[in-house]
Amino acid sequence: MSARVVCFGELLLRLSAPGREKLLQSPQLEVRVGGAEANVGVSLARFGHRVDMVSTVADNALGEAVVGELRRHGVGTSAVRHVPGRMGLYFLAPGAIHRPAEVLYDRAGSAFALAAEEAYDWPALLAGADWLHLSGITPALGANTAAAALAAARAARAAGVKVSFDGNFRPKLWEAWEGDARAILRGLMAEADVLFADHRDMGVVLGGQYAQAEPLQRVEAAAADAFAAFPHLQWLACTLRSPRNVDHHALAGVLVGRSSGTALAPQEEVGPIVDRIGGGDAFAAGVLHGLARGWEPERTIRFGLAAGCLKHSVPGDFNLVSEADVEALVGEGRYDVKR
Amino acid sequence: MSARVVCFGELLLRLSAPGREKLLQSPQLEVRVGGAEANVGVSLARFGHRVDMVSTVADNALGEAVVGELRRHGVGTSAVRHVPGRMGLYFLAPGAIHRPAEVLYDRAGSAFALAAEEAYDWPALLAGADWLHLSGITPALGANTAAAALAAARAARAAGVKVSFDGNFRPKLWEAWEGDARAILRGLMAEADVLFADHRDMGVVLGGQYAQAEPLQRVEAAAADAFAAFPHLQWLACTLRSPRNVDHHALAGVLVGRSSGTALAPQEEVGPIVDRIGGGDAFAAGVLHGLARGWEPERTIRFGLAAGCLKHSVPGDFNLVSEADVEALVGEGRYDVKR
Amino acid sequence: MSARVVCFGELLLRLSAPGREKLLQSPQLEVRVGGAEANVGVSLARFGHRVDMVSTVADNALGEAVVGELRRHGVGTSAVRHVPGRMGLYFLAPGAIHRPAEVLYDRAGSAFALAAEEAYDWPALLAGADWLHLSGITPALGANTAAAALAAARAARAAGVKVSFDGNFRPKLWEAWEGDARAILRGLMAEADVLFADHRDMGVVLGGQYAQAEPLQRVEAAAADAFAAFPHLQWLACTLRSPRNVDHHALAGVLVGRSSGTALAPQEEVGPIVDRIGGGDAFAAGVLHGLARGWEPERTIRFGLAAGCLKHSVPGDFNLVSEADVEALVGEGRYDVKR
Amino acid sequence: MSARVVCFGELLLRLSAPGREKLLQSPQLEVRVGGAEANVGVSLARFGHRVDMVSTVADNALGEAVVGELRRHGVGTSAVRHVPGRMGLYFLAPGAIHRPAEVLYDRAGSAFALAAEEAYDWPALLAGADWLHLSGITPALGANTAAAALAAARAARAAGVKVSFDGNFRPKLWEAWEGDARAILRGLMAEADVLFADHRDMGVVLGGQYAQAEPLQRVEAAAADAFAAFPHLQWLACTLRSPRNVDHHALAGVLVGRSSGTALAPQEEVGPIVDRIGGGDAFAAGVLHGLARGWEPERTIRFGLAAGCLKHSVPGDFNLVSEADVEALVGEGRYDVKR
Amino acid sequence: MSARVVCFGELLLRLSAPGREKLLQSPQLEVRVGGAEANVGVSLARFGHRVDMVSTVADNALGEAVVGELRRHGVGTSAVRHVPGRMGLYFLAPGAIHRPAEVLYDRAGSAFALAAEEAYDWPALLAGADWLHLSGITPALGANTAAAALAAARAARAAGVKVSFDGNFRPKLWEAWEGDARAILRGLMAEADVLFADHRDMGVVLGGQYAQAEPLQRVEAAAADAFAAFPHLQWLACTLRSPRNVDHHALAGVLVGRSSGTALAPQEEVGPIVDRIGGGDAFAAGVLHGLARGWEPERTIRFGLAAGCLKHSVPGDFNLVSEADVEALVGEGRYDVKR
Amino acid sequence: MSARVVCFGELLLRLSAPGREKLLQSPQLEVRVGGAEANVGVSLARFGHRVDMVSTVADNALGEAVVGELRRHGVGTSAVRHVPGRMGLYFLAPGAIHRPAEVLYDRAGSAFALAAEEAYDWPALLAGADWLHLSGITPALGANTAAAALAAARAARAAGVKVSFDGNFRPKLWEAWEGDARAILRGLMAEADVLFADHRDMGVVLGGQYAQAEPLQRVEAAAADAFAAFPHLQWLACTLRSPRNVDHHALAGVLVGRSSGTALAPQEEVGPIVDRIGGGDAFAAGVLHGLARGWEPERTIRFGLAAGCLKHSVPGDFNLVSEADVEALVGEGRYDVKR
Repeated sequence: MSARVVCFGELLLRLSAPGREKLLQSPQLEVRVGGAEANVGVSLARFGHRVDMVSTVADNALGEAVVGELRRHGVGTSAVRHVPGRMGLYFLAPGAIHRPAEVLYDRAGSAFALAAEEAYDWPALLAGADWLHLSGITPALGANTAAAALAAARAARAAGVKVSFDGNFRPKLWEAWEGDARAILRGLMAEADVLFADHRDMGVVLGGQYAQAEPLQRVEAAAADAFAAFPHLQWLACTLRSPRNVDHHALAGVLVGRSSGTALAPQEEVGPIVDRIGGGDAFAAGVLHGLARGWEPERTIRFGLAAGCLKHSVPGDFNLVSEADVEALVGEGRYDVKR
Repeated sequence: MSARVVCFGELLLRLSAPGREKLLQSPQLEVRVGGAEANVGVSLARFGHRVDMVSTVADNALGEAVVGELRRHGVGTSAVRHVPGRMGLYFLAPGAIHRPAEVLYDRAGSAFALAAEEAYDWPALLAGADWLHLSGITPALGANTAAAALAAARAARAAGVKVSFDGNFRPKLWEAWEGDARAILRGLMAEADVLFADHRDMGVVLGGQYAQAEPLQRVEAAAADAFAAFPHLQWLACTLRSPRNVDHHALAGVLVGRSSGTALAPQEEVGPIVDRIGGGDAFAAGVLHGLARGWEPERTIRFGLAAGCLKHSVPGDFNLVSEADVEALVGEGRYDVKR
Repeated sequence: MSARVVCFGELLLRLSAPGREKLLQSPQLEVRVGGAEANVGVSLARFGHRVDMVSTVADNALGEAVVGELRRHGVGTSAVRHVPGRMGLYFLAPGAIHRPAEVLYDRAGSAFALAAEEAYDWPALLAGADWLHLSGITPALGANTAAAALAAARAARAAGVKVSFDGNFRPKLWEAWEGDARAILRGLMAEADVLFADHRDMGVVLGGQYAQAEPLQRVEAAAADAFAAFPHLQWLACTLRSPRNVDHHALAGVLVGRSSGTALAPQEEVGPIVDRIGGGDAFAAGVLHGLARGWEPERTIRFGLAAGCLKHSVPGDFNLVSEADVEALVGEGRYDVKR
Repeated sequence: MSARVVCFGELLLRLSAPGREKLLQSPQLEVRVGGAEANVGVSLARFGHRVDMVSTVADNALGEAVVGELRRHGVGTSAVRHVPGRMGLYFLAPGAIHRPAEVLYDRAGSAFALAAEEAYDWPALLAGADWLHLSGITPALGANTAAAALAAARAARAAGVKVSFDGNFRPKLWEAWEGDARAILRGLMAEADVLFADHRDMGVVLGGQYAQAEPLQRVEAAAADAFAAFPHLQWLACTLRSPRNVDHHALAGVLVGRSSGTALAPQEEVGPIVDRIGGGDAFAAGVLHGLARGWEPERTIRFGLAAGCLKHSVPGDFNLVSEADVEALVGEGRYDVKR
Repeated sequence: MSARVVCFGELLLRLSAPGREKLLQSPQLEVRVGGAEANVGVSLARFGHRVDMVSTVADNALGEAVVGELRRHGVGTSAVRHVPGRMGLYFLAPGAIHRPAEVLYDRAGSAFALAAEEAYDWPALLAGADWLHLSGITPALGANTAAAALAAARAARAAGVKVSFDGNFRPKLWEAWEGDARAILRGLMAEADVLFADHRDMGVVLGGQYAQAEPLQRVEAAAADAFAAFPHLQWLACTLRSPRNVDHHALAGVLVGRSSGTALAPQEEVGPIVDRIGGGDAFAAGVLHGLARGWEPERTIRFGLAAGCLKHSVPGDFNLVSEADVEALVGEGRYDVKR
Repeated sequence: MSARVVCFGELLLRLSAPGREKLLQSPQLEVRVGGAEANVGVSLARFGHRVDMVSTVADNALGEAVVGELRRHGVGTSAVRHVPGRMGLYFLAPGAIHRPAEVLYDRAGSAFALAAEEAYDWPALLAGADWLHLSGITPALGANTAAAALAAARAARAAGVKVSFDGNFRPKLWEAWEGDARAILRGLMAEADVLFADHRDMGVVLGGQYAQAEPLQRVEAAAADAFAAFPHLQWLACTLRSPRNVDHHALAGVLVGRSSGTALAPQEEVGPIVDRIGGGDAFAAGVLHGLARGWEPERTIRFGLAAGCLKHSVPGDFNLVSEADVEALVGEGRYDVKR
């Protein structure tokens, strides 16, 4: 049973150093397409859902390329606006061993960031949809996008479209325009049915302190606060990430239901990492897939974690794996050549 | 003391995704040359033996390239036939972490698969040879190649040329033409002096069940059955492979002699893997090298395992290492720069 | 407080196989610039010191490229001589898992090796400098460079410029011209304030045997002998390297002061290694930075080890990290993306 | 005024040597997607028409990549069938100066070639379409595809959908299965409203001899025969190509209307050629665009020729230019940087 | 006799499609460093002058790379300011045959454009200089840079530093902020000793109409107006460019002296063009070199044109040729291999 | 009728800048294998002759790669000696338009140059051969190779093996060791049956002045002197090369027979050139092929020129074309895609 999903957010070009080089150590950049919400959208399209992207891009060769790449991966792009302006970019040096990856954002003043709230006709854009997916990056980009994200979430609730919201708290973006992160994020979370967030996000929004010894306890306490604060909220999910070094992390997954309690996907060792970007988005897509399919929480969180782990083996921001690929890993994992 | 070895089998072009990408994720393919028997041949040529390839390729630029690559690595190619037709291909996405490598064969209808049994004049081709090396892939390609492989093995035995046979059981290939794998493989194994096979191969051919707790016990039981069934057989060898994840396997080696019992090369950790393809062929070549040199079983299997391990560090299907490289690893291993 | 540092040594072009390939397995070579002393110089320039290179290169496009690359990384090159001749080269195959990296030197007869002692006007070249850095590779190249290195060290001492000397004992280079390594190195070490050397170097130069059970004990014993033999010497530092396999080493750091005793930086696991070349030079630069800054030995050796570890994550011979990058690792290490 | 166009034909992967190398001279292949009818489809989509591809691909990563690439360029792919089998491939060495480009087809037994006539439900596939575009390559692939092409053309005529047919006579393909090229092509041309063909094609199909001195006269005579033989036919168009050497051709364009006579686009010099493949398809798409727009013959053939010329400057099989790009060249051509 | 030259202008990263591809046709970008004034500076440094760049870059890895690249080519960078912000970028698709190259600027809001006039202490920056080189791009970027350029030119004149000004009129940049191009450019030209401009530039600034039949006559008429309007002006130079197609242009050079009349360098055919960007800057540097050397106008303009022609054979924005390279072409040109 | 040919000369690694870049403009080098005599050998092997290379290479990975590349292209390498030492290298920047290609030799002190005359047992090496091919580069490398070349030529004449000698006069190499070019080349030419040389070579060796107006007249006069001076000489051949610019040359071919007079292959335009290196060697191989086949002079020189022209379209030093490829060009040339 596949769902119709609308994703709203910025589309970005990623320009990354080849191999494990530093930025511009040699005179080449590899280009990928990304964006937190688009990453979720591509995953869901690969899992068999019908996904449409709502966004604004520059009406030039870069915007065309970004949109074409989404289409290539099965995401509908007829609701992407092409307007004069610039594309958001980010530069990436992937890091290695003890040297962390570095992201250099160059997205200020992008066509997406400058698009007015009224640019989007939400009732029309959401017609027939089952889900709307948003993240906390969009409102962090400025007053325009904050207003647009809120309008989208409220229109979805009004239309009976379920809202999925990924916290993705980025202090630097909020500071750049002195946005009231707490109020705006709270407004968005209030409309959410599903929230991807951990105790740090909830601390920012609800002001709670989560000093429990175990990460899982901190997440569960934060989830309890979230359910209390947001009556529409049904599910809160997050990963627990433990980096051993830059090339090797460990990941567990948690899904807390308002009524069903905590489902846990046990920790997996993930390394040597091919590409860590988009790991959280791949996890979110996996969880949304389980929820859309109506699976049990246990199955859902195991699928979500497996999807998130697999992303670390795929170059680029998109998790180019199928439902069957994820199921194979949930099953037992086969680590030898498939012929 | 170097041997003259004839290898018979298909030559393949491998087209692989760069880095750890998925197939056609970016629009480039890296080209390598391979084929189970050619892989063994190249290893043996590197170890100092005189090796000649018997095969059939397309009489076009691809066939020419494949043959040139063998020649580059010291394998004689004057017995390779060039005929109208197509080359066998395979596409490879190498995988990473939890995402297994995928091989996509495109070899149906190749010039090799279509070559009639009579295309090869075995008495002439084997004149002066010490060894003939075959694998279970060749008969799996169809009735023509099954007949040709049997003819080769029988001609070898008739001429006093020792026969090495690598089981390489591939159910999908047999199913494609409904070949009688059991009968044909049994016929080939009946001519073999050396057999590269484990309990799974022997279960297919002899019908035995090997439910022992330890892998080594299963191999030894299968070897006992093999020696009973095939009176010419002197040696059975295999690796015991334990994948921890896609980038990291562990390998041990077993060599069972009809009269000398079991020699074991203890497990080595192998990772991060550069290229897993051809690992079994590199092991087989290492063992054949020891047998051709007349080494003790213990030394032979240690050399075979070291050769197999080293292959995992070399890009491509061929194990581009020398006898001295393998000996250095058997010795103690030096893991810092050689200057 | 930044220092003025003069580095004297050969500049080399490194030509390396792409990825983990063997040399010329595919028809491409990646080009980097290196040289033990230049590697130290680039690190120190990145840490904020004013560094000038003294060397001799070929007056052709290769020499120009090498010098331009130093300049790009902030090292002064006005004291590099351009003369007719050839550039020193080295070819590198990086190795993997059990297959060690291989360096193929092609530096005989280089413009640097042939430059006469008198080519360098040391009093002028050292005017205003705080430090002179040399290594044992330069005297190993032949009688000319041995004389030049000694002249440099003695001129430095005469001018009150501190001398840093990295042992870098390379038997093959000495054997090629039957140079008296022991006498010449002893002469150089006699001028040194700081010596990068371990018990093996000191064994060569002072003839001692260091059979202590623990590597640290062997280094401390060698340091004691060095302080006894060389009255100017204030510090001896080295790494303790334990290769697990080609892709994974462990490194600790030792700094012994004539009066302050031993400071130890505890062992770090380093892997999967991106580029091992220049690891020792990066360590030396880190230690020199601490000494130039006047830091405590403990802080100095921790900084030196962290710098050396980080080098293993950077492609090429140069350690393209900043003081802040190293401090971040000394601090606690963050192994997730920096955004 | 944009049209709805259905294109039917095989989708191919092109694997080409980098730069001007010979095939496998170095171990890399660049991958492009093509196919005569898909090339026309991508052009028309870029010119603003709604285009849907009807085809059959292998249900593997290669088929998925091909279909994704069409989607990326704006062609609808929901009518592409994914079935077990292999993809058609072709290998390309681009040639240079006096060395002609070489195409090595490897398309026998492809999923498309093996698809039965009944696989396509033409009334449904053509519903709402204005145009159907076919070429002579499809029927040349075998009895299945010949039947399917005829069925498509007849269904189009029955449904009032205009038929565009590009002769693309390839003797080798017809000989491979001893197909009756003359009868089958005649059957297809009988349904065409627009025919891309020159005197050589018409000679094959109608048996005429065209020995006029001037190429244009030969085309006009052939067009007269075509209009006589095929009462539905309204337009015949072709290029007149004069290769000076492999890197430099000259091209003129001819469009003959049943009632309007000959419109000529004068010869353009085209060189140095970047990629000659798909030049004819780009021309056909340009002419179809003019016809769909209802332009005068003169304007139509000038647009067609300009589109065909521009293709020679774009790497790959697709003509990645917009209507505005072509109009700019028709206008006057600006050959300096656009900033 | 070498001069001390100060160049003031923006440093840009150029991101270009590989080969003759369209932007993002394949997922790679080649990176070069450029900027009209930096291009002149690198040429002059290569010709033996001492050149210092004055500019403002982002204090990140991109800014560091740009500055390092200038240093690599011998330009002094100690006067480049590193401040928070973004780097100016431009994307380039090189074009071919009839398809013009396209430049996509993404430089709005760059650190350079936002730097206030007061950021530069011109008396200090110009101390000891012989020449200041500016171009019309800098004032076109906004009020800040317009003010800074004027301040620089006036400070130079006040300090007796000769001013070289390249018109480089870019209407789009002026329109973006509604700057008064005419007044500002007039103010800058009033300070110039040497002006690189043709009749179009002078038409913009002085309002003249130049309808003479021959381009040379138009330039001479414009020069006469310029000498009348700007009493400090001694020289006006420009190229006459005739594009045959995108890959092949023809270039002549004109130098008009206030007192010496017109010197002409006759037209050269230039093709197939490797990289057209920076051709005008290379010409300007060549002319400035002749003026700085005190050469005759005839020799100067021939050198300038030869330098400009050579640039078309060098990838990237910089003209990486020496004085000897240019002299060789002025001499007679040798078009076979130099061994 | 194929011949057995022995080629004697140095094998070189060529390291070239990618595309049209300057050396080390970006940090990559493309690797090719070459050497004047090996280039001839590979061509002849491609034309169907049995060719064996006699040479000396370094016993390292570079020497192994060079020898493997020859074998790949069908040249026998069992007579290549592997000894300690270094490989000869050359660096190439290909040039463009007005910027000539530059070759930077780094071959001094190579294993080949240092090999003593006695290293080669000529009677054994020439047993069964029909032809020996040498060039003037070998004696220019030093006294050892000069002696070895003379010994080879004399042994060939003594054994009835025909001698082909390509003048290839390189003044710089002779000057480096003050070799007596005139005497040594005269000694070699005295043994030649076929001489590839023009009036410049003959002027050096015989001291003649050739001031005729037409190049062809100069060559004929030089040939007359050569036939007078060298009684064994039967044929003299050369190309007449007219460079229009670096990317475009014109070539004619001349073959003068002692008894048959002059045969001329008329001038061909050659451009845009892909790789000019090895053009002369390809011509020589084409002429030798015609002579070995016993063709008429006219056919021989047309084949030789066509082979030489085709080389300019093939990347690398080797002329990777077949006899059929050359015949196709001699025939009439087809400049459109071969499908």
